[in-house]
Amino acid sequence: MIDLYTDSSPNGFKATIALEELALPYRLHHVKIDDGAHRRPEFLALNPHGRIPVITDDDTGVTLFESAAILFYLADKTGRLLPQGTKARWEAIKWLQFHAASMGPLLGQRVHFEMFAEEKLPAAVERYRRLTEEAFSTLDARLAGVSWLAGDEYSVADIATFGWTHIAAICGFSFSHHRNLFRWHERVAERPAVQRGIALPAPATGP
Amino acid sequence: MIDLYTDSSPNGFKATIALEELALPYRLHHVKIDDGAHRRPEFLALNPHGRIPVITDDDTGVTLFESAAILFYLADKTGRLLPQGTKARWEAIKWLQFHAASMGPLLGQRVHFEMFAEEKLPAAVERYRRLTEEAFSTLDARLAGVSWLAGDEYSVADIATFGWTHIAAICGFSFSHHRNLFRWHERVAERPAVQRGIALPAPATGP
Repeated sequence: MIDLYTDSSPNGFKATIALEELALPYRLHHVKIDDGAHRRPEFLALNPHGRIPVITDDDTGVTLFESAAILFYLADKTGRLLPQGTKARWEAIKWLQFHAASMGPLLGQRVHFEMFAEEKLPAAVERYRRLTEEAFSTLDARLAGVSWLAGDEYSVADIATFGWTHIAAICGFSFSHHRNLFRWHERVAERPAVQRGIALPAPATGP
Repeated sequence: MIDLYTDSSPNGFKATIALEELALPYRLHHVKIDDGAHRRPEFLALNPHGRIPVITDDDTGVTLFESAAILFYLADKTGRLLPQGTKARWEAIKWLQFHAASMGPLLGQRVHFEMFAEEKLPAAVERYRRLTEEAFSTLDARLAGVSWLAGDEYSVADIATFGWTHIAAICGFSFSHHRNLFRWHERVAERPAVQRGIALPAPATGP
């Protein structure tokens, strides 16, 4: 059985969406970041970096943090949400990594400087607008003529990337001018498992 | 045969180190970012995001960008640099992802704001010092009592993480007070394949 420790956030929704898509049984533990639960010793024992999501799997003894590692683990465990063919499989992994390194962290910094930072720093706001726009453009170009990031099959790459486009939409970071990306986002958003996933442990209500 | 398109940078060195460790034959193509080679159509056809490194493998037809995806591909292709046992394997993947999402992008932002930004923004400099220090602490805690990030075996997680500690050292971002991390860094740096990898296509000379 899998235990998932998470909160309502882009990184957390990736794990809940994947578990809902796979219909795997799991126990949901709400780590309330607003209450500092991610800084308590029992959580730091699971992830010394103090970030959600974390899973433990008592079938294998594995404890994992980092959302991309969790998505890849769940795909590997079930043989689903990752294409079998060599080229499509590596497309999925490439775009999963693009999300992990080149999209998510930059959107995270944009959220900070545009929404939360006490001191408004126009140069930093402009930097992360430009870099996230460049990531959106790259995704938009990839999605010209294919339905999903890996090609024909919906995969963990789509789930991961949607975690951040969902939050971008909530924050008002527009990407609707990227028509392929926007249509892909709407296609993912319609999936019942995605709708369940973004409401666990509670819906994101915006910054 | 593998073709590697790269320049002298933290992300590029991960690929050259891994190829040298594996003693795989490869053709090295120097994408000179200072000359704008990463913005030319022939490179953008390989990676529309315009970032190095990229590999193509004519054995499989796979084209990959994102350094963590490349490292994972090379490990998968050869059955090396990734432990076989379930728990150690997922430790390696977890720390590879930690590097990709929670260490590398933040060090990249620190390099920008501390070394390159035209406008000095103390709040941004302070933010990335704090966040990278937190990443160093997390790695230091992991390396208490184990030789390598996956545990007993040197893996792609060590190569990836070293790509950034190497650049941190060149930039003067001190981490020697994290004794486990510092000793691990010196252990990786001594490896002959690492010494070859950080000199390809040319040594990094600092920011």
